[in-house]
Amino acid sequence: MAPAKVPPTTVQRLPLYLRCLVQASTHHMPVVNSVQIAEMAGTNAAQVRKDLSYLGEFGTRGIGYDVDSLIAHLSRHLGLTEHRRVAIVGYGRLGSALQGYQGFAERGMRVVAVLDADPAKIGIAVDALTVEDIESLEAVVARERVEIAVITVPAAAAQSVADRLVAAGIRAIMNFAPVALRVPEGVEVRQADVAGELQILSFHLHPERTRV
Amino acid sequence: MAPAKVPPTTVQRLPLYLRCLVQASTHHMPVVNSVQIAEMAGTNAAQVRKDLSYLGEFGTRGIGYDVDSLIAHLSRHLGLTEHRRVAIVGYGRLGSALQGYQGFAERGMRVVAVLDADPAKIGIAVDALTVEDIESLEAVVARERVEIAVITVPAAAAQSVADRLVAAGIRAIMNFAPVALRVPEGVEVRQADVAGELQILSFHLHPERTRV
Repeated sequence: MAPAKVPPTTVQRLPLYLRCLVQASTHHMPVVNSVQIAEMAGTNAAQVRKDLSYLGEFGTRGIGYDVDSLIAHLSRHLGLTEHRRVAIVGYGRLGSALQGYQGFAERGMRVVAVLDADPAKIGIAVDALTVEDIESLEAVVARERVEIAVITVPAAAAQSVADRLVAAGIRAIMNFAPVALRVPEGVEVRQADVAGELQILSFHLHPERTRV
Repeated sequence: MAPAKVPPTTVQRLPLYLRCLVQASTHHMPVVNSVQIAEMAGTNAAQVRKDLSYLGEFGTRGIGYDVDSLIAHLSRHLGLTEHRRVAIVGYGRLGSALQGYQGFAERGMRVVAVLDADPAKIGIAVDALTVEDIESLEAVVARERVEIAVITVPAAAAQSVADRLVAAGIRAIMNFAPVALRVPEGVEVRQADVAGELQILSFHLHPERTRV
């Protein structure tokens, strides 16, 4: 089959579908149809069918999708057939919360390094890891074969951390610092923006939106 | 003018535009055009023009948008002309990180209450607030006129917290617990999903995506 370009909006929904399918699997459902996936995912069935069609033809019309093979298929597409190696840069309250997040492992993510600039934090044991000096970032990235970096340093430090990560070969960054990172082409950044999420909620609260 | 329905994908970009415009304003730019906004926001100019057109006609062709009036316009649309009153339910590491986040105030959000179930945490002073007993959630929501609730309790407790928030009149919830909340129609939930964000990054790392 010819290579298909999966639209970014579809990519954004794939983790959600995967989560729904894992849920279906734990409830011992061998097959799900697009209506059921849509219900769990809070979208509509046509959207589900369209999104999944980008990944190939593997549902059966009138029956649905085999749950286990769709999980395998989505995992492969998301590059989760083995754990992704994640470094958390910045061991403040947020970095610490993320490091302790139980949901990473079951979603294909493995935190392999935690770094900070604060001498008071360097050397702290966190689970099987030790907080390492951000000065040795390049060495840690290489040693641990880090694939994804999570930036949880203060805003003022985020760009220089990103520059060093990119120079060290990192091509995927999740940024929690409230600053827009400049990265070269080929490096993917996802920006966490909690205040922005709350603003979106605010929009929905606001009657002004219907009085344009 | 007839009421216009703003598409959800546009709503999602409005906080980003607002942030870019505030940035332009701090750089003393009185006017910006759609190309400049697009550059700052990492999107394209046609998208910017289309998104902003849903909010009414106020750019000048060939010149651009008056920064201050567009900020005012977007803020009004996002319901940010006065601060939104936010409660954080769950004062663990994540709740604590969010409570301490400096960026809320400048983005129109004001944390007015922090709650937890742990007797060891209840009574702790956090800035001008005190961690309050989750048992008194309904009273706190009413007293503080909370508009947006942020759920940072463990997954097992999230649904019951959400039920109580909804019963207390809350219509906007940001959920950080890794569980899909069931809420009645008219209540807006935004689901934070860090593992999902990392999976999206993983997709971009993965060569499989071009070999569908």
